[in-house]
Amino acid sequence: MSTTKQLAETYKNSKYQVPGHGPRNIHVLQNALAELDGNLESDIYGKGQVIEEFEKKLAAILGKETAVFFPSGTMAQQIALRIWCDQKSVKKVAYHPLSHLEIHEEDGLKKLHLIESVLLADKTRLIRLEDVKNMDTDVACLLLELPQREIGGELPEYEELVAISEFCREKEIKLQLDGARLFEVLPYYQKSAAEICQLFDSIYVSFYKGIGGLAGSILAGDEEFTKEAKVWKRRHGGDLISLYPYILSADYYFEQRKNRFPQYYEQAKELASFYNGCHGITTRPVVPVSNMFHVHLPFPKETLEPVFQAVYEQAGVGLAMALHAVDEASCYFEVSVGDNYGGIPKEALQHAFRVLDEKMKEV
Amino acid sequence: MSTTKQLAETYKNSKYQVPGHGPRNIHVLQNALAELDGNLESDIYGKGQVIEEFEKKLAAILGKETAVFFPSGTMAQQIALRIWCDQKSVKKVAYHPLSHLEIHEEDGLKKLHLIESVLLADKTRLIRLEDVKNMDTDVACLLLELPQREIGGELPEYEELVAISEFCREKEIKLQLDGARLFEVLPYYQKSAAEICQLFDSIYVSFYKGIGGLAGSILAGDEEFTKEAKVWKRRHGGDLISLYPYILSADYYFEQRKNRFPQYYEQAKELASFYNGCHGITTRPVVPVSNMFHVHLPFPKETLEPVFQAVYEQAGVGLAMALHAVDEASCYFEVSVGDNYGGIPKEALQHAFRVLDEKMKEV
Repeated sequence: MSTTKQLAETYKNSKYQVPGHGPRNIHVLQNALAELDGNLESDIYGKGQVIEEFEKKLAAILGKETAVFFPSGTMAQQIALRIWCDQKSVKKVAYHPLSHLEIHEEDGLKKLHLIESVLLADKTRLIRLEDVKNMDTDVACLLLELPQREIGGELPEYEELVAISEFCREKEIKLQLDGARLFEVLPYYQKSAAEICQLFDSIYVSFYKGIGGLAGSILAGDEEFTKEAKVWKRRHGGDLISLYPYILSADYYFEQRKNRFPQYYEQAKELASFYNGCHGITTRPVVPVSNMFHVHLPFPKETLEPVFQAVYEQAGVGLAMALHAVDEASCYFEVSVGDNYGGIPKEALQHAFRVLDEKMKEV
Repeated sequence: MSTTKQLAETYKNSKYQVPGHGPRNIHVLQNALAELDGNLESDIYGKGQVIEEFEKKLAAILGKETAVFFPSGTMAQQIALRIWCDQKSVKKVAYHPLSHLEIHEEDGLKKLHLIESVLLADKTRLIRLEDVKNMDTDVACLLLELPQREIGGELPEYEELVAISEFCREKEIKLQLDGARLFEVLPYYQKSAAEICQLFDSIYVSFYKGIGGLAGSILAGDEEFTKEAKVWKRRHGGDLISLYPYILSADYYFEQRKNRFPQYYEQAKELASFYNGCHGITTRPVVPVSNMFHVHLPFPKETLEPVFQAVYEQAGVGLAMALHAVDEASCYFEVSVGDNYGGIPKEALQHAFRVLDEKMKEV
């Protein structure tokens, strides 16, 4: 077995896992369905109580007129950008070079919608007001991701968001929120979802990250926007006869976890401080601004895999399922704090970090 | 309440419903999951035991090298046609004017893939070998739907299929099977799925029609084809982190019903004969060739809705949830025979048709 596989196995078999809400197994869905009346009717091609009530509920939470449930965020966001491009008759949008659209979607936006992307900022930092002010304003839409996942989940200050929003409105550039982790950033901003969303014309939120549902997303905006989004949803093949497994699990885990984000945020700050206390390890951000951060390690992935495996075995605590190479000399992993964290005894956690610290000194 | 709504309500509240497998409620999913081990791990973005095993199983059944699970047939078929168009550098495909792609997908193929459609035959009949021989052969792919749903589920003879397939191979035109109801036509052809599929280069099958799963489809073909299909699946936003609710229910109901299609076919022929025995009513086909057919009625929908409602109330048997206008003077509905049919006492069914016959005479 490769050291990568061994690490993953040891992680799964550890008594405790630090990140996340628990294993992604079918129990997650079984739980969500267990107490529901079996006579509840399926949604049918976007219609019916199950889907319409959830869409209304989320529209209200996000402070928008309407919302549409999508099987995936990839589909929802491409469609949002397409609508704004069609409206302005400009096939160009702006976003971060590490946006999901740019690096995880096989260029769907370009290959399916023939939309060109203008990349703002660079791979190492957030999009700033200056970047927006200096960009080619002949774009239909600017997409901002809060938090910017691929750089560890950083956030602009609220005032800067407001300024970006005002600039875009003035220049008639639509502003789309990649809010895959929107609920996760509210404790930092000390704002409601609707307060953040009012800065944006359209919003996507995900239900399988912090919320821990199965999959699925909501796209919200005004009525004209969502009406058109439903047409595109059908074109993409996303208007399934039944989306209820995703909707019911989204709702179930949203209700269960919607008030836990301040706790995850506090725990993430604590956990990051444990990492930063270990020899050679730094987190990005140093002080997290949501439930997530990245852990950076100044050694090759191959060198550290056996080290981490030894920590998990000795302490009974799994820190990360995998390490990812940054370059030949360093690696990183992502941490998202969820329900698991609170279930680990403090002593076990502290022991794990003492072991990690010692072993890092010996590398 | 409108007569349309009243009819639907009366249908649902009838003691027996004639078509289908039963209500589309969440019990369908709860049942499929009930006996599964909760520790079974989710598929993750197209990988993992749950999805890979089902794909392998279906590839073997369809007699193809490989298969890919998709959330919808809309997505699967657009992608199949795109791959064949790209391979030939021709943005043109041929299909029936009542193909799902032409009438139910908001022109996704044209709007997303910029693929032009050549319509063969006309809305009243099947595509024949002659239509294929006479078509512009500068198309990348011909799509055939078996059975042709929108004309009642008609089928060409097997020998004609073979001749069409041979012609396409000779002309280097790919042949895609819209096999949404493939398992439903095997009893008529007296062939295995693989025997039918070997005439085609790529095949789509659905899991929520005769099989009665939740949603989802399989696209099968050779390895190069499915490899590319996975890339397009991601571009479409269909490569969900978890597709298991659809896969597990597809597999569960496939195993439950895979051997029942000959029975549904025999029952459909019996049921069609009951309809054809009623005053003014004809089915298309007169003798069904699968589990489905259409029922045609020579009166306006609005005239017949109260008539059908009265039949359901008097006999306790629901025949159809809705009638659809063909034009101002006539209407029709679709019937698909499933598990419901066998559960209705013969006397109840015969009584219902006697009542229907009498009432039709009075219209």
